[in-house]
Amino acid sequence: MDNHVFDKMKNIERIFSPTSIAVLGANKVKGTVPSDILTNILKAEYKGVVYPVNPREKHISSIKTYKYVVDIEDPVDVAVIVYPSSVMHMAIEQCGQKGIKGAIIISAGFKEVGGQGVEREEQIKAIARKYGMSFIGPNCLGVINTDPAVNLDASFARKMPEEGNIAFISQSGALCTAVLDYARAKHIGFSKFVSIGNKADISEIDLLYYLKDDPKTKVILIYLEEISNGSALVKAAKTVIEETGKPVLAIKSGRTKAGASAAASHTGSLAGSDEICDAAFKQAGIIRCDDIEEMFNKAIAFTYQPLPAGNRVAIITNAGGPGVLTTDASIKCGLELPKFNPATTEILKKSLPKTANINNPVDVIGDARADRYNVAISSVIKDDNVDGVFIILTPQSMTEIESIAHEISRISSQFSKPIYTSFMGETDVAAGIDILQRNKIPHYILPESMPIAFASTYQFKRMIEQKQEPLKIYGDVSIEKAHSILNKAVSNGRKYLPEEEAAKVLEAYKFPILKSGLVQSGEEAARLSEKFGYPVVMKIISEDIVHKYDVGGVILNIESKNDAEAAYSRIVDNVRKAKPQCSIKGVLIRKMIPPGEEVILGLKRDSTFGAVVMFGLGGIFVEIYKDVSFGIAPLDNKAVEKLIGETKAAAILSGARGRVQRDINSLRECIFRLSQLALDCPQIKELDINPLIILEDGKGCFVADTKIMI
Amino acid sequence: MDNHVFDKMKNIERIFSPTSIAVLGANKVKGTVPSDILTNILKAEYKGVVYPVNPREKHISSIKTYKYVVDIEDPVDVAVIVYPSSVMHMAIEQCGQKGIKGAIIISAGFKEVGGQGVEREEQIKAIARKYGMSFIGPNCLGVINTDPAVNLDASFARKMPEEGNIAFISQSGALCTAVLDYARAKHIGFSKFVSIGNKADISEIDLLYYLKDDPKTKVILIYLEEISNGSALVKAAKTVIEETGKPVLAIKSGRTKAGASAAASHTGSLAGSDEICDAAFKQAGIIRCDDIEEMFNKAIAFTYQPLPAGNRVAIITNAGGPGVLTTDASIKCGLELPKFNPATTEILKKSLPKTANINNPVDVIGDARADRYNVAISSVIKDDNVDGVFIILTPQSMTEIESIAHEISRISSQFSKPIYTSFMGETDVAAGIDILQRNKIPHYILPESMPIAFASTYQFKRMIEQKQEPLKIYGDVSIEKAHSILNKAVSNGRKYLPEEEAAKVLEAYKFPILKSGLVQSGEEAARLSEKFGYPVVMKIISEDIVHKYDVGGVILNIESKNDAEAAYSRIVDNVRKAKPQCSIKGVLIRKMIPPGEEVILGLKRDSTFGAVVMFGLGGIFVEIYKDVSFGIAPLDNKAVEKLIGETKAAAILSGARGRVQRDINSLRECIFRLSQLALDCPQIKELDINPLIILEDGKGCFVADTKIMI
Repeated sequence: MDNHVFDKMKNIERIFSPTSIAVLGANKVKGTVPSDILTNILKAEYKGVVYPVNPREKHISSIKTYKYVVDIEDPVDVAVIVYPSSVMHMAIEQCGQKGIKGAIIISAGFKEVGGQGVEREEQIKAIARKYGMSFIGPNCLGVINTDPAVNLDASFARKMPEEGNIAFISQSGALCTAVLDYARAKHIGFSKFVSIGNKADISEIDLLYYLKDDPKTKVILIYLEEISNGSALVKAAKTVIEETGKPVLAIKSGRTKAGASAAASHTGSLAGSDEICDAAFKQAGIIRCDDIEEMFNKAIAFTYQPLPAGNRVAIITNAGGPGVLTTDASIKCGLELPKFNPATTEILKKSLPKTANINNPVDVIGDARADRYNVAISSVIKDDNVDGVFIILTPQSMTEIESIAHEISRISSQFSKPIYTSFMGETDVAAGIDILQRNKIPHYILPESMPIAFASTYQFKRMIEQKQEPLKIYGDVSIEKAHSILNKAVSNGRKYLPEEEAAKVLEAYKFPILKSGLVQSGEEAARLSEKFGYPVVMKIISEDIVHKYDVGGVILNIESKNDAEAAYSRIVDNVRKAKPQCSIKGVLIRKMIPPGEEVILGLKRDSTFGAVVMFGLGGIFVEIYKDVSFGIAPLDNKAVEKLIGETKAAAILSGARGRVQRDINSLRECIFRLSQLALDCPQIKELDINPLIILEDGKGCFVADTKIMI
Repeated sequence: MDNHVFDKMKNIERIFSPTSIAVLGANKVKGTVPSDILTNILKAEYKGVVYPVNPREKHISSIKTYKYVVDIEDPVDVAVIVYPSSVMHMAIEQCGQKGIKGAIIISAGFKEVGGQGVEREEQIKAIARKYGMSFIGPNCLGVINTDPAVNLDASFARKMPEEGNIAFISQSGALCTAVLDYARAKHIGFSKFVSIGNKADISEIDLLYYLKDDPKTKVILIYLEEISNGSALVKAAKTVIEETGKPVLAIKSGRTKAGASAAASHTGSLAGSDEICDAAFKQAGIIRCDDIEEMFNKAIAFTYQPLPAGNRVAIITNAGGPGVLTTDASIKCGLELPKFNPATTEILKKSLPKTANINNPVDVIGDARADRYNVAISSVIKDDNVDGVFIILTPQSMTEIESIAHEISRISSQFSKPIYTSFMGETDVAAGIDILQRNKIPHYILPESMPIAFASTYQFKRMIEQKQEPLKIYGDVSIEKAHSILNKAVSNGRKYLPEEEAAKVLEAYKFPILKSGLVQSGEEAARLSEKFGYPVVMKIISEDIVHKYDVGGVILNIESKNDAEAAYSRIVDNVRKAKPQCSIKGVLIRKMIPPGEEVILGLKRDSTFGAVVMFGLGGIFVEIYKDVSFGIAPLDNKAVEKLIGETKAAAILSGARGRVQRDINSLRECIFRLSQLALDCPQIKELDINPLIILEDGKGCFVADTKIMI
C-alpha cells in the first residue's frame, strides 16, 4: 500500500518513550493549551530533547524555536500538535516528511464537530498512513508516562500524577482531569495515562496490546464512550488477561438509551445494545465498573495487594456496628467469614480484653490502642483459614490512629495475603489514611467497599485459573448444504426462510429436529410415521374443533405402521361422529417425545460485537423476567457455561427443588453448533430456535420450531 | 403502679433541653470518659447550670462538686451518669429521690455483657420506673442538642457538630464518632444527636414520637442493629411521616442473617427476617439505606433543598463523559431528561459557544468559566419542563471553581427547585466544594449519586401525596365460625388443619373456594355437581391409569344433573373397557373454571413485625425467580398496591405482552380478607393459599388449595 514500514506497536512505544519531541504550535501565551503543554513537558523534567515549533517565535521558554518541523536539524521521534484543525493536514504532512512516526494531536475540530471536521479527520488519517505514522487523538488531553527514565507529560493536565502501576486510557479528556485530581489526593500512581480523544488512529485496542507487554503496567483501566470494534476489543482484552493475568477494568457509558444519545451528541457515535456489551465484557474477562470510584476501589486492590488464595476473610474492628455491616456486605458478595484455628483464638483470648469478641468479626473494642490491633492482625493473618483481612477503625478519643496505620503497613509487607482497610470518618482519621495510602494499603471510605473489591479480585483469580479448552469445531456439519439453501433464498430476494427450509439449515448442522407433518390419508400417515420413527402422536386439525380430546381427535403412543394407519381412520371416524358437519384439514403427525423443558436459542448480528447468541427460557421468562443471557460467537467452553449459568433457567434445568434433571449436555452441544453456524453462515441475520425442548438427562433435546431471517 | 406521674415525652424533652444537669462520676483525670463529658458540656457553653458529683472531690474544672446528687441545693433536671455498673442502682435511686426525671447512662457493663449485667439493667429499669424517670442508655456515647438556646453536648464525642436540621439516632456509639467526623468535614449540621446504646428505656420509637414535634428537626436518621418491636417502629415512623412529612432514613444491619427456623409451609420458608424488615420499612415509608454515605447523600438532599415537583431533571456539565454517566444513572433511577422550552434553547444558543451542547444534558464545554455556568443554570432552572438541576464540574485549567460555587449558591437561594452539584476531583475542587457545603447546596463526590438522591426525594414526595383510604374491614365474615374450627383443632393438640377444614376457615372469611370431591356413584356425582354449580369436570382416579384422556377417563363441560349421572357411568364404562383389570378409586368432581393465572397468597407470624402477608406467582416463580413480596398486616390500600405491584407477577396479571387481563380486583379483595383474617385469628401460625386461580377480568378468582398451620 505504501512504502513505509508500518509497525504500530513500535510507533506507540515511541509515543510513550520518545528521545525527542517537537511541539508544533507552542506559544508564549501563559494559560493557553499550547503553552501549558510545553510547560508540562519541561516541568516533568522530560529526559529527552524538546523542540518548540512556531513560525512567529524565535524562542519560547528560553528554548530555541523552529519555524517548521522540517527545519529541525536533528531527528525527531514524536510530534505534539496543537495547530488549528484547518491547517492540521499541513502539519502532519511536514511531520511525515521529517520522518516522524508518532504524533499526539491535541487540537479539536474533527469528527466530533461533524461536517468538514469529518473530512479533516479522514485527511489526516490518510496522510499519516502514507508516512507509516501512528497518532493519538485528535481532540484529546495528551499522554503521560511516569517512568523516571522518560518523565513525559505531553498533556495540558494540571499536574503530573505519581508513578505507579495503573495504566489509564480515557475517551473523555475532561474526565481525565477529574481522575488525576482524585488519584493525586489518594496517592494513586499511574504507569501510563492516555487521553485517546476521537481515536482516529490509535485506539484502546492498540493500547491494550501495547500495555500487555509494558513491564510498568499491572492493571489497565479504560473509560469508553463508544466502541468501534467490539470483537477486536474483546479479543485484545482476552489476550491481555490470558497471557499476562493483568486485569482490565472498564467503564462504558451510555448504559441507558438516553445516555447513549447524549454520548452520540458528544462524540458523534452511537452506542450498541448495552446487554450485549455487558455479555461481551464478561466473556472477555473485562471487569465492568459503573463509576470512577468503583473502578479505583477495585484498581487499588489489584495493584497494591496479591490476589487472594480463596474467599475467606477475617474482619478486625473497634466498632461493632460497622463490623456487622461489613459482614453483611461480605456474605452478599459471596465471601465467607471462617472460624479461626484454635491457636489463633487462644492468642486473641490471651491478648484482648474479656469484653472483646475473639471470633470473626474480631471486635477489639472501642478503647483499643495500636497494641490490640497489632496482635489481632498479626495472629489472624497467619491463620490458614484466612485468605484476607479487612481492618476497620473508628476514631475514639484514645485510638492511636497513626500508629495503627504504621503497624498495618509493617505487617502487610511481611505477608502475601491481602489486607484492606477502612478508617471511618474524615478529618480525625486523615493522617492515618494518608499513611496507608502512601504505603499502598488499599483504603476505603466505606468499610462495605472492602468486600466488593475483594470479591472482584477473587473472581478474577478464579477466572484466570479456569482451564480453557480449545474451541469446539464439529466436523459432521455441511456448510455447503446450508449455504446452498441460504444463498438460494438470498438470491430470490427473500427476507426469511419458512420453517421447513430453516429446519433444513439446522439439519445440515446436525441439530436434532422434532419432525412433524400434516397428512390426508392413512397411507400417508403410515409413511410419515415410518420416516419419523416411533412412537408418534396424531391430532385432528380442524378450525371447527376446539376440544380435540373431547371428540376423540387425539391419539398418543402410536407404535407401528399398522397402528398408524388405523389411528388415522379412527381419528377421522371419531370426529365425523361427534361433529358431522365439521371440515377437516388433515391429521398432524409428530414424533412423540416425553415432556421436556422448553428453552429459546437465538442468534443476532450486532453492529459492534458481531454474532450474538442468546439463551433463555421461553415466554414470560424472557419477556417479563428478562431471564436471558448473551454470548459473542465463537463461544468457547467457558463462554457456554457462562451463557447457561447466568440464567435462572440453569437451576431449573439442573433439577432444582425436586425437578427433573435435564440433558444440559445436549443443550451445550446445540449452543456450540449454533456458534459454529453463526460464523460459517453470515447470510443469517437472525435466527430463533423456539422452543428447544430439553428432555431428561441423557435423552437429548429437540428443536420444535425455527425461524431464520436473512 | 407507682405514685409518680409518668410522661415519657416530657422526660425526653427534659433530657434534650435541661435547665440543670448533674454529672455523676465526674472526675479530674483528663482523657477519661467522665472528664471528657464534663469538659464537653462546658466547652459547648451549655446554657443551664452544671453540677459535678463525686464523693472524693471538692471541685472539678473550677466548679463546686457535690458528694451526692441529693446534696445539691437546687432542683436538678437531668443526670448524666458515668459510675460503674456495679453501683449504678444506687446512683439511680438517689436521682429518683432528688426528683430527677431524665438520665443519660453512659456506663457499659449491662445487658451487652450478659449474666449479671442483664440483672443490673433490669434493676435500674425498675428503679427508674418507680420514680417516673426516663433514661437514655446504658452503654452509650451520650446526647447532643445543638439548639443555641440549650447548647448541650452531654457526650464524650471529640467535637460538637454544627447546628442543623438532621436528627441522628444510633444504636452504635462507636459509629457515632465516625459519623460526627464525616459530617463535620462536610459541614453537615444536626438538630439532635443521640446514642441510644442498649435502649433499656428510651428507644428509637420514643425518639421518633419526640422528634415528630421537634421544630428543629426536618429529617430523621436511624442506625439500628436490632429491632425490639417492629410493629411499634412501623407505626411510629408512619405517624411521623404522615403527620409531618419528615422523612425517616434508616440503616438496619444484619441483612444477611439467615431466617430463624425452617418452617413447614412455603410462606414460612420464603420470608427471611430481612425481606420482612425491608417490606415493613417500605410500608412505613422508611427509606432504608445500605451505608452511612448513602444515608447522608439522601439526607442532605432532603434537608437542604425543596422536594421536587416532578422527576424531570436537567444536567449541566463542562465534561461530556460524566454527563453521559449521570444521564445513564438518572434514567436507571426513573428520572427523565426533558426537552427544554424553545425560549430556554434560544438563550443557550445565544450565550454558549457553537461547540456547546444546548440540549439536555447541557455541555458548556471544558473551557467554561463562571459566566457560562451562570447563564446555563439561570435559564434552565426557569424552564417549566425542569423540576431540578444537576451541575457537574471538572477542574480544567481555566475553570473558575470558586466563583462557580458562589454563583450556584446565589441562584439556588432564588428558586424553589432543587439544585445538586458534583465538583469532580479532590484537591483542586476542595475550595469550591467547601463553599457549596457551607451554603447548603447538596454536593456529591460522584455525579451518579445525584440522581439516586433526587429519585429518593421524588419517590418520597409521591408517597406522602398518595391518598390513604381508611382500612377495609369486611362485615360479612364470621370470626366465630373461624375461631370455633381453629380452637377445636388447637385444643385437640393438632399442628395443622386438613384441607377441608382449612377451606372452611377461608369460607368463613368469604374467600371464593373451588370445590371438589371424590364420588363412587352416579347419584353422588349428581348430588355434588348440583352443590358445586355447573359446569363441572369429572376425572377418573386410579393408580393404574397414567393417560386419563386416552382411556376416556375425563369429561369436561358437564352442564346438568342428568349429564352428571350419565358422565359418571360413561367414565367408568370407558375405563373398564380400556383397562379391564384396573382398580378404580372413584371419580373426582370439580367445578369447572376457565384457565386462569395461578398465584400464591401466604401468611406467617414474624417475631418482630407480627402478621406478614406474602404474594407471588407459584412454582418456580417463587422458588427460583424469588418473585414474591411481603406486607405487614393490617394492609391498607397503599400496602396492597405495593404488595402486588412490586412483583413481576403484576405485569403478567395486567395482561402484559398480549396476555389476558386478569381480575386483579378479586385478588385485592382476597388480600384484604387475608389481612383481616390474620389479625382476627392469632391461632393461625402459617397459612398457604396455593394456588389462587385468577380468572379473566371481571370473572373473579378461586382458592384451589389451602394449608393452615396452627
